[in-house]
Amino acid sequence: MEKTIKIVIDTKGADKGAQMMIKGAAMALSEYPALELCLVGDAELIAAELKAHNADVARVEIIDAPDEITNYDSPAVAVFGKPESSLVRALTALSERDDLAGLINAGSTGALIAGSMRYLSLKDRVRPALAAVLPAESGGFTCLVDTGATIDCPPALLVHFAHLGSAFMKEYYGIESPGVALLSNGAEPTKGNAAVKEAHQLLAADESIRFIGNLEGNSALSGAADVLVADGFAGNQVLKCSEGMARRLITDIVKYAKKTGDENIMKLVGHLMSVYDFNSLGGGIILGISKPVIKAHGAANEKTVVSVIGMMMRMLENKQVYDRDSFAIS
Amino acid sequence: MEKTIKIVIDTKGADKGAQMMIKGAAMALSEYPALELCLVGDAELIAAELKAHNADVARVEIIDAPDEITNYDSPAVAVFGKPESSLVRALTALSERDDLAGLINAGSTGALIAGSMRYLSLKDRVRPALAAVLPAESGGFTCLVDTGATIDCPPALLVHFAHLGSAFMKEYYGIESPGVALLSNGAEPTKGNAAVKEAHQLLAADESIRFIGNLEGNSALSGAADVLVADGFAGNQVLKCSEGMARRLITDIVKYAKKTGDENIMKLVGHLMSVYDFNSLGGGIILGISKPVIKAHGAANEKTVVSVIGMMMRMLENKQVYDRDSFAIS
Repeated sequence: MEKTIKIVIDTKGADKGAQMMIKGAAMALSEYPALELCLVGDAELIAAELKAHNADVARVEIIDAPDEITNYDSPAVAVFGKPESSLVRALTALSERDDLAGLINAGSTGALIAGSMRYLSLKDRVRPALAAVLPAESGGFTCLVDTGATIDCPPALLVHFAHLGSAFMKEYYGIESPGVALLSNGAEPTKGNAAVKEAHQLLAADESIRFIGNLEGNSALSGAADVLVADGFAGNQVLKCSEGMARRLITDIVKYAKKTGDENIMKLVGHLMSVYDFNSLGGGIILGISKPVIKAHGAANEKTVVSVIGMMMRMLENKQVYDRDSFAIS
Repeated sequence: MEKTIKIVIDTKGADKGAQMMIKGAAMALSEYPALELCLVGDAELIAAELKAHNADVARVEIIDAPDEITNYDSPAVAVFGKPESSLVRALTALSERDDLAGLINAGSTGALIAGSMRYLSLKDRVRPALAAVLPAESGGFTCLVDTGATIDCPPALLVHFAHLGSAFMKEYYGIESPGVALLSNGAEPTKGNAAVKEAHQLLAADESIRFIGNLEGNSALSGAADVLVADGFAGNQVLKCSEGMARRLITDIVKYAKKTGDENIMKLVGHLMSVYDFNSLGGGIILGISKPVIKAHGAANEKTVVSVIGMMMRMLENKQVYDRDSFAIS
């Protein structure tokens, strides 16, 4: 029998609600035979929804959690003050039990980071980062770190992100010596805000990573770098502006396709959606903690949940998180 | 006879060289009958190139400037230390002569800002900003300010940018009460880096502008705001990531069109290029100085020069800088 993988899912906190999360979980059980799940949240609701979707309940464990952490809670306060929340129960189980391999959540990013720091810290208690693995223009992937976990970053933290991203691309994408770039407003070392300029010097002097210099926004995802380092504020702009602009062009193209009735164009739209809808199809990966945790997009739908569970399965099998073949023009 | 408009062009500093700038100037003379030019740079080269392109030299004045400010010069130092540079000669002429209406340059952004501060300061000596007017998804325009002139911005400077952008959209786009948003990593007032969070409070309390709150990267150019305020670092990311991602999709579409041989798709590409190649077709506008100055993209080609001269003509006629009709799907 194939080795099973058991993943914890926090069913609360998503914009579209717990029912959507449970439906996505049920769909993933059908999709991945090696998958087992530990669903955390309203136990009654979970049981009822699983039944409604004819899920294979033999592969599901339920942990009841009456409370919920929302985007209105202060992350650090909530993680300590809401012990009965689904997130705290999920993290507690994940940290204490060897049979649980990883966690997926679609709620408050801040609380997930704070909780990961509390329950899944490595021995040296490094600060975790929220990375996104994005399809690069050259055909590979770029790991953008940070995308919003830490907004104000001193230079040493940017260097730390470089190490986290580099280790991640080595482990999951088999890149022996990942090229690390620093996001800036110009290619020259003198370009950047105060923290970026200082980080540039530190990175250039750091022999344990292969620093390739600054990258500007227009080549952020060119594939020139395997790892792109930014503070959470700027990294968030790269992620969201890129996806926003891609979605906008796709909307324009759909309009044009409807006007012309051209079937080739509708096929093109399908391809573009599969490549460029990366934010809502994927999820953020928390780097620098003891077990894999993926933050699904807050606006996740069932498809996102299935896709993110797939990411997690690949991660746990130590394969690349995304499969590039799925992005090829066909 | 139609009233003429005389614009100063710094022919030096562009990536593609002075010959390209002069060729673009010659093309613009044919395109705009009301245009007169004052070309600053190597006088011999200018005269020779104008002749080579059969330009109407009766409408051109030449100011010789043997020196050049490059991207390797420290902006502030260069503006004081290179009095014979084309930029300093151009700015001196513009500041001293009433017949010269505005300036176009495609060289060092830093030097252009420093020079504008020195020669074109308003009485209250406000800090200028570099804005970009971008086509919004809703059909209007969004004035993004700052796009890279000031990288490290205290909260009060962000508020100042809000005022500059608001005044600009009133004057050139006839928007009575422009909606001003602040770029952040979340919609809530508590989201943002330290400067953004404080600026949010200051903007919310400022009754002289219509503040509509934070906008995230994925809705930065939705049209929800007439003015989008960001520090030069983050604003630069919005501008360059948006254009980079648009260009990348267009490249993908061209590949697909070649594969399918679908003519409708090539037509679509033409439309998308006209809307989304905004950075290289347009130019940055310096706000907060006494006369209009436009910074053309460093990688400008002849078409960019013609397009930017057109922008300047419209500005000087107090019309909107870009004409939305030219962006419509046809």
